[in-house]
Amino acid sequence: MRTLSDVGEFGLIARIQRLARQQRAPQLVLGIGDDAAVLRPRSGEDLVVSTDSLVENVHFRWRTQAPSTVGRRALAINLSDLAAMGARPVGCTLALAAPPSLELRRVEGLFRGLLASAREYACPLVGGNLSGAGETSLAVTVFGAVKTGRALRRHAVRAGHRIFVTGSLGGAALALARAERRGGTVRRVPLPRLRAGQALARLPRPGGCIDISDGFASDLEHLLEGSSLGAQIELERIPRPKGFAAACAALELDPDLLCVAGGEDYELLFTLGSDAGCPLSETALSRRLGLPVTEVGHIGRRPGLHGLPRQRGWRHY
Amino acid sequence: MRTLSDVGEFGLIARIQRLARQQRAPQLVLGIGDDAAVLRPRSGEDLVVSTDSLVENVHFRWRTQAPSTVGRRALAINLSDLAAMGARPVGCTLALAAPPSLELRRVEGLFRGLLASAREYACPLVGGNLSGAGETSLAVTVFGAVKTGRALRRHAVRAGHRIFVTGSLGGAALALARAERRGGTVRRVPLPRLRAGQALARLPRPGGCIDISDGFASDLEHLLEGSSLGAQIELERIPRPKGFAAACAALELDPDLLCVAGGEDYELLFTLGSDAGCPLSETALSRRLGLPVTEVGHIGRRPGLHGLPRQRGWRHY
Repeated sequence: MRTLSDVGEFGLIARIQRLARQQRAPQLVLGIGDDAAVLRPRSGEDLVVSTDSLVENVHFRWRTQAPSTVGRRALAINLSDLAAMGARPVGCTLALAAPPSLELRRVEGLFRGLLASAREYACPLVGGNLSGAGETSLAVTVFGAVKTGRALRRHAVRAGHRIFVTGSLGGAALALARAERRGGTVRRVPLPRLRAGQALARLPRPGGCIDISDGFASDLEHLLEGSSLGAQIELERIPRPKGFAAACAALELDPDLLCVAGGEDYELLFTLGSDAGCPLSETALSRRLGLPVTEVGHIGRRPGLHGLPRQRGWRHY
Repeated sequence: MRTLSDVGEFGLIARIQRLARQQRAPQLVLGIGDDAAVLRPRSGEDLVVSTDSLVENVHFRWRTQAPSTVGRRALAINLSDLAAMGARPVGCTLALAAPPSLELRRVEGLFRGLLASAREYACPLVGGNLSGAGETSLAVTVFGAVKTGRALRRHAVRAGHRIFVTGSLGGAALALARAERRGGTVRRVPLPRLRAGQALARLPRPGGCIDISDGFASDLEHLLEGSSLGAQIELERIPRPKGFAAACAALELDPDLLCVAGGEDYELLFTLGSDAGCPLSETALSRRLGLPVTEVGHIGRRPGLHGLPRQRGWRHY
């Protein structure tokens, strides 16, 4: 089995350049192969930047995840942050650290997956870095663009706002629990809600917005941070995937805890007030955002989260 | 001794936000604390992006390097890439992966160093990511700006161009060799040649430019990649630090090899033709670039590097 050390650093870079060659985008002036990449912004736009990592044995295991899934996932979790800002993807970079003994088919699988997602979301890989390491880690940085001053911000949450989520929650945590019990492979890649975020950013007065990575409860707390506000949630209204209750029962898992604290949903959690500039019915919002939207509660002046079972989200330390 | 796991992920983020609070820059619309950062580009500029990593036991050792030096270095090596593109720094992100058992004073030292350099070079830390890991690694991504279409590119090298370097070469390799022999601490932080790169980008017709990270010979090869050109070097003209020959002799090191293949100099290596639009004397160029510039050879039609001892640069795999 060929490894990274067989092809060498520059051999690998040449392979990646070949894999990435078909990337074309009007904003891409200079891609992989120079000291830095050059992107051409449109006038009247702000630049949105986010970074997120996947580390071996913390976020993924070679044994249970296909390399291309890891690559797709590394980009998807970053694009989800752009979605939460209402931004359009412009480009990304990857800093890959890996042991010289890592099999080449795994490295190429990572890049194939990442580049497939990059094409799908029009977010070309414009540069990166390769480094030796004791364990594999991928640090992806994404750049996006949004009309000047129109980025969605957490701090736009106000008392009286209604609270909405896109899609359904708990499915990722259920899939992970199932794979852990049965020893199967995790193939789930988050779908960054880019169009939904961009539709929110076009509203005359959008509220706060965040993507759900740590878990609904934990990210709702983040959304409220720095304000003295609180949230009243109707637990039974939180949208769950089809067959969720039965699947949880079969695994003896608490469905409420799973969808409130499970994490990795990568749906959008956002608030809107009556001044938003659009009808606030679920039907109207679902049509506007292009995917199911559910109202799950409202923002009030009493600090803290109300109506939820107590549980912390996923924390690294 | 307090560790990362004592303060927790969000406790650490709060500490970093406090350390980073005094960052102010006209381009910074929204910094640390939301899903992503927002930067406001000036009109008529391209965006320049580069990423580079430092990995524990590959690029640094806690035993021999002060945490703040590691932090400063992580930003400096990235700024050096912006310098090689002729760009002005705009902002940076840090993806930090570290074991929960890492001492808090080391993490805070990293951030203090990085933030000190960020202030010094007007390149605010606008966002980042913290992740658990088995070993510490820092992936920094920098963003810069340059007038539309004016980024320095390697591919502008032409036959007949003269070859120049800024500063002197071999000092970093000598310091490292000395520290390894004597078991001392490495405090050296590269000085990114930002002003020199920006001065080159303002020339009517600049040539090719690269920063010397792998080593003079290796990076000269990179500069020539994709062309059918070669370089004739006058080895004795390559500028060395004061007292370099004597220091090398004391350690029984070959001074020529050290300055040609030692690496980590982070000086600029560039070419200029008679059509550059400026006088090509060392004196005139030194004045224009704001630091010593030495002519070391010229670009010719015979492929390969000529006049150099044979030696490969540092490669990761």
